[in-house]
Amino acid sequence: MRVTIAVDAMGGDHGLSVTVPAVSNFLAATPEAQVIMVGRAEPLEAALATVDKTLRPRIAVRVATEIVEMDEPPADALRRKKDSSMRIAIDLIKNGEAQACVSAGNTGALMAIGKFVLKTLRGIDRPAIATQLPNTRGVSTVLDLGANVNCSPEQLLQFAIMGSALTTAIEGNDNPTIGLLNIGEEETKGNEVVKEAAELLKHSGLNFYGNVEGNDIYKGTTDVVVCDGFVGNVALKTSEGLVQMLYQFLKDEYTRNWRTRLAALFSYRILKSFKKRLDPRRFNGATLVGLRGVVIKSHGSADELAFEFALRKAYQEVAHGMLDRIAQRIEAVSAKLPLVTLLDADRADRGADA
Amino acid sequence: MRVTIAVDAMGGDHGLSVTVPAVSNFLAATPEAQVIMVGRAEPLEAALATVDKTLRPRIAVRVATEIVEMDEPPADALRRKKDSSMRIAIDLIKNGEAQACVSAGNTGALMAIGKFVLKTLRGIDRPAIATQLPNTRGVSTVLDLGANVNCSPEQLLQFAIMGSALTTAIEGNDNPTIGLLNIGEEETKGNEVVKEAAELLKHSGLNFYGNVEGNDIYKGTTDVVVCDGFVGNVALKTSEGLVQMLYQFLKDEYTRNWRTRLAALFSYRILKSFKKRLDPRRFNGATLVGLRGVVIKSHGSADELAFEFALRKAYQEVAHGMLDRIAQRIEAVSAKLPLVTLLDADRADRGADA
Repeated sequence: MRVTIAVDAMGGDHGLSVTVPAVSNFLAATPEAQVIMVGRAEPLEAALATVDKTLRPRIAVRVATEIVEMDEPPADALRRKKDSSMRIAIDLIKNGEAQACVSAGNTGALMAIGKFVLKTLRGIDRPAIATQLPNTRGVSTVLDLGANVNCSPEQLLQFAIMGSALTTAIEGNDNPTIGLLNIGEEETKGNEVVKEAAELLKHSGLNFYGNVEGNDIYKGTTDVVVCDGFVGNVALKTSEGLVQMLYQFLKDEYTRNWRTRLAALFSYRILKSFKKRLDPRRFNGATLVGLRGVVIKSHGSADELAFEFALRKAYQEVAHGMLDRIAQRIEAVSAKLPLVTLLDADRADRGADA
Repeated sequence: MRVTIAVDAMGGDHGLSVTVPAVSNFLAATPEAQVIMVGRAEPLEAALATVDKTLRPRIAVRVATEIVEMDEPPADALRRKKDSSMRIAIDLIKNGEAQACVSAGNTGALMAIGKFVLKTLRGIDRPAIATQLPNTRGVSTVLDLGANVNCSPEQLLQFAIMGSALTTAIEGNDNPTIGLLNIGEEETKGNEVVKEAAELLKHSGLNFYGNVEGNDIYKGTTDVVVCDGFVGNVALKTSEGLVQMLYQFLKDEYTRNWRTRLAALFSYRILKSFKKRLDPRRFNGATLVGLRGVVIKSHGSADELAFEFALRKAYQEVAHGMLDRIAQRIEAVSAKLPLVTLLDADRADRGADA
């Protein structure tokens, strides 16, 4: 399937020095993809001069005169940076020239611009941030990771619908199991929002497993784990911190003296392959799900390989019809839960102001 | 300092087969401690017959005819099990025969009985569950870990006071830094409760560092990390799940073939010492902090060594005056924050009903 991805070529900590080689590798591996690079004219053309000539025809260029800074308040980026590489990349989805956008820039600005320009999907109150995390069986899709600190039970249900559709698109799993993150498996546990969300999920027709706990994310108890953005963000960052600490401890032990350094040599390939399984670059690319377009946020510090994974994710979501799948699942859930006005047009149209 | 600890001898998955040898090892290492074992007369006396004769005079026995089951609803345990080993162990604090209680039994029941019998400390609305977690610099005290799913800003402030006093008692750190768990370091981040709690903490006179994120727990950015019980429980269990997964991945890599098994032999001591640094047994013993007595909850599946660590923690908290330290810090904070009625007697007395 022919897929066109708009790339914020200037975004992230490294800008063109990462986005251009990543796009080049991505295009070489994905013959049906093409890319529109959005950025400052001269540096972008200069960087593109290094790209293999056979790939160059699949790269279009769109000039942007501004850049959204990493620490710029989202509201400022939205109001004042109308000619930024990020804004134009998203505009390209809106006007139909691209089906997806990938940016390593400011997350808050990307979400604000995405909501304003694209609006939210019908039936979705607020977009969420979703990503895949490794588990002992494969991967889990977890959302929300920080876009919404206070969520209603209906929003958690919407996250479940979106997570389910996203997992189908990315993992090819037609009926993913959904877990609701809680502090115990029993139905009596948790706060009121989670209890009400469990009731909605039970009657939603989705493949609802029930409550799961933090450890279930990495056990892989369910394919999707749903939570509010505060809890999801803490779970994700706690995990990042713990992995860093464990690497540090392993390093401490292996560099203690000449004997342990020798053992490290014997274990070199083993430790390398251990680290590879957890390599965050392979999981790079969070989906801003719920927008009327595929928008992928790459980590700001992404290198070539990591940014390439974010591009691949954008491609997969478009190629496997993620947006249509969400729409279909919203219809299906609405048929089961008539009391929940998931398809209330008024609500959906409020999306952009939220 | 002479310290008497009441031990729920029957609690946990293993009961006497763990509690008796753990008590024996604990007493051998701690000459100033004595213990009151609470449990069924015959099996308890039989188990105690194996204890070294020089230690036996420091072990008193109190007979209990009932046991609180691990899955028993806390309200039932509170109402119906008045002659249980757990209840009597807590009663021993109330009537002054012991200064602390350690149980590996049902957490909810221990909290319910603790609140009913002992009441909460003056100035504390609700007790919290606190524990120590390893970090790259030492340990962090984290609370709440699941006792309170919905918290007010004032409660988060109270957790900070208790965490600070607990850290001083256990770690000997006189002015521990306090971090407020949030989804960003900026003051604009998070929900209203966290923002208001940050304002209170800023004016509390405590050593408030500011907002911290999930990764800061394991970086060791602050000595204490404060959060509500939902978030704390998810962070803790996510960490447990991640560590299990990483061990599984390491094991997978080291058992792949004869070469990797050989490398594992060379790394045996290194991996053992790596695991030891993270050994959850060394961190066993969560403090039910905020009660008018030292109550320590051991993990239900604790073995001898783990249960001994829980006993040591109880001893330290008594020996280093944890309860007085909390009272002093509440007084100090109340002097700085006159608008917050931390010492409202009515509130404190409501503690038992909460």
